[in-house]
Amino acid sequence: MKARRLASITPFQVMALLARARQLESEGRRIVHMEIGEPDFDTPAPITAAGVAALQAGQTHYTPALGLPALRQAIAEDYRRRFGVEISAQRIVITPGASGALQLLSAALVDPGSRVLMSDPGYPCNPNFVRLFGGEPVAVPVTGRPHYQLDAESVTRHWSSATVAALIASPSNPTGSVLPRAQMAALLGAVRERGGALVVDEIYQNLYYEGRPYTALELGDDVFVINSFSKYFGMTGWRLGWLVAPADFIQPLDALAQNLFLAAPTVAQYAALAAFEPGTQTVLEQRREEFRRRRDYLLPALRELGFGIDGHPAGAFYLYADCSAFTDDSYTFCQQLLETAGVAVTPGSDFGTQAAQRHLRFAYTTSLAQLRLGVQRLRDYLQCQ
Amino acid sequence: MKARRLASITPFQVMALLARARQLESEGRRIVHMEIGEPDFDTPAPITAAGVAALQAGQTHYTPALGLPALRQAIAEDYRRRFGVEISAQRIVITPGASGALQLLSAALVDPGSRVLMSDPGYPCNPNFVRLFGGEPVAVPVTGRPHYQLDAESVTRHWSSATVAALIASPSNPTGSVLPRAQMAALLGAVRERGGALVVDEIYQNLYYEGRPYTALELGDDVFVINSFSKYFGMTGWRLGWLVAPADFIQPLDALAQNLFLAAPTVAQYAALAAFEPGTQTVLEQRREEFRRRRDYLLPALRELGFGIDGHPAGAFYLYADCSAFTDDSYTFCQQLLETAGVAVTPGSDFGTQAAQRHLRFAYTTSLAQLRLGVQRLRDYLQCQ
Repeated sequence: MKARRLASITPFQVMALLARARQLESEGRRIVHMEIGEPDFDTPAPITAAGVAALQAGQTHYTPALGLPALRQAIAEDYRRRFGVEISAQRIVITPGASGALQLLSAALVDPGSRVLMSDPGYPCNPNFVRLFGGEPVAVPVTGRPHYQLDAESVTRHWSSATVAALIASPSNPTGSVLPRAQMAALLGAVRERGGALVVDEIYQNLYYEGRPYTALELGDDVFVINSFSKYFGMTGWRLGWLVAPADFIQPLDALAQNLFLAAPTVAQYAALAAFEPGTQTVLEQRREEFRRRRDYLLPALRELGFGIDGHPAGAFYLYADCSAFTDDSYTFCQQLLETAGVAVTPGSDFGTQAAQRHLRFAYTTSLAQLRLGVQRLRDYLQCQ
Repeated sequence: MKARRLASITPFQVMALLARARQLESEGRRIVHMEIGEPDFDTPAPITAAGVAALQAGQTHYTPALGLPALRQAIAEDYRRRFGVEISAQRIVITPGASGALQLLSAALVDPGSRVLMSDPGYPCNPNFVRLFGGEPVAVPVTGRPHYQLDAESVTRHWSSATVAALIASPSNPTGSVLPRAQMAALLGAVRERGGALVVDEIYQNLYYEGRPYTALELGDDVFVINSFSKYFGMTGWRLGWLVAPADFIQPLDALAQNLFLAAPTVAQYAALAAFEPGTQTVLEQRREEFRRRRDYLLPALRELGFGIDGHPAGAFYLYADCSAFTDDSYTFCQQLLETAGVAVTPGSDFGTQAAQRHLRFAYTTSLAQLRLGVQRLRDYLQCQ
């Protein structure tokens, strides 16, 4: 009696590795965790304090489905301050995590049979959201030369009469790569010409280490943008994100949200109001600098060990590493690294099928000291092979 | 570029009435709110205190997709204590609200073209969940004679080769009616014989005013049950629910949850651990008694005014009232009640199509004093017609 789709939706392989790592730890082993897509920092204190204050004030009831007006306004103001772009608060929808935003947009854009272009490698939930609504994800192979991203050219090549949208994450999970602004504009132009929708996942937007980031919202009011309080703002467990959509989508998105999840968690919305305060921003920028230091250490260190890291990992907290110098079976290699070296990383197969057996994802969501220990263990392990 | 499904998913009509009520209030009118499907009580203090303590302890990261093991265990123990039924904690999945549970189960059971039987009137999101996944909701007209519920007979009559499941809510929204245990067993038998799944929404389970409630889980390990911390536990804004599924569904539900929402909100899960403590239970039982007093006042009062309330509203906090003595257009009637009498109620059209123009839903989610005021205003209004 199970729906057929269940056969195509399998647990991420990293879950089995994580469970094994926890088991080894319970037996006394010390594991270096470079597999986890979650910042190691707790939520900044001012945000947590705002959450505590909201609970103590009895803010435990539903909010409107589109979210607290004050939070929608605060996000609009942040776009103005940070990027100089005017976004009406009316176009901002608060969601339970970026997951809720991906789901709303998939429901709003994807008919049965519709095709959506996305990169391989890419965020593994994306194809499943499209499939859930009867659509067909089209995995476009991308490489690190130049940028591990869809662009105008690849979209033009893969677009068909059934294609309705292109979905891109910049910075990307698992590669940390960014599509430069001019190429994002060209991509938008190519999608527009074909009457499609461009969806840009910007959840790692402010985790960018090379100057000032931009938002695809600067390029036009017809872009769909997904964002989240999880990564940069350190609020993973609160389950809070948002999306920005063209104005004529807001009423249908409201109706969808009423049906799909009623509203995002109330305490998270009140807590997030503190995310844009200057004191919080200071903490977040310090953390960003810390992520940059980790990247600046880990990227050359892995290359020196013999991992191939193409493209330019300018954001997020991931490095996507070619391990074909050591193996042609990255999942088995991950198991060996865990068991023998005590280092946990994520196999490429969690992010697609293209060259997945030749790739690993390293997350620098642990301290520099742990990263150094991990690199030392990798060196020792690889030298003994 | 909008998906075709958007045409069939419209905002609930009560939303427009609620917005108008808020506007009238901002102009100084006092409105009696009998339209809101949310308890007027704040979250019980011990639950909120547990949430505050979790935040202060830095519990702001993701939990496992299936939920905190301690919470799954606490729910299993509550089933044992309250109903004497042994449910393995492994079969319990923590979800972002009952919405998350409905969504997971729809994804797990409904293929494109699959039919799901449900009652009309019923919870308005149910057909939309089925449609989202390409299925076809089959609205089975039910009346208050005897119980406003699907039963073995109606399921047998409406089952087809494409039918995969029957979905029932007991106590029901909008009618407050309950399917007696023996008839639930017969319903399960009829669904089983046909190789289908029975999904029982028990989110109002403990808001029951006539003796001890039961759970459909007593009837077999093949029943799917949806529940929530929103209504009885007073945790609407926290967005926390759960489902209980047959053991062989847990692994696929885990994979679906990883993709659809990653995990339920962490602070809500820690807070909910306090929901089963004796001190909290005392508060919740006092509230249940208060809901009972409200029902015992409102039911005869509305009947005396000329509303027809069929069946036996033994649970939840709703009365579904036939208003055909006054109108054949319940939505316009709702608008008039709001504008002229200052009483907000929900039109039947939010719950289906069967006799919807002849029905209203009254929610007793406001104080006895407000209910008395509302009834007085209704009396004055109806006498002047």
